[in-house]
Amino acid sequence: MKSKHAARGIFAAHLRRIRLGKELSQEDLAELANLHRTYVGSVERAERNVSIDNMERLAKALGCHIAELLKED
Amino acid sequence: MKSKHAARGIFAAHLRRIRLGKELSQEDLAELANLHRTYVGSVERAERNVSIDNMERLAKALGCHIAELLKED
Repeated sequence: MKSKHAARGIFAAHLRRIRLGKELSQEDLAELANLHRTYVGSVERAERNVSIDNMERLAKALGCHIAELLKED
Repeated sequence: MKSKHAARGIFAAHLRRIRLGKELSQEDLAELANLHRTYVGSVERAERNVSIDNMERLAKALGCHIAELLKED
């Protein structure tokens, strides 16, 4: 991974994959994490420099651990 | 881990452990990551809601992967 913001892309891809695996919409996930739907969308597009606290909220809402959402394949 | 900001503490502890293992000061790490020394200090005290981009810079500066810095023991 050579991109400057590779971690954003990794996080975004895992988030989307696990969310869809649970058959949740972005809106469902936003509600579970107590975040805004448009915010979740922008995180999944790797547009946001998401903070560790919000990463943790998203991971908890999906029932997984934050480290899982950052693993390289 | 029941704390609201458990991930901050996990990240902080790994960062400090790996930094010390490489015999780097907070100032050394800050320079390698192109961040401010006081910022690195506050991240290591889990005071900061650090962003994914800065987590990635810190991980790269230590030669490790961001997911490693979030693993629960």
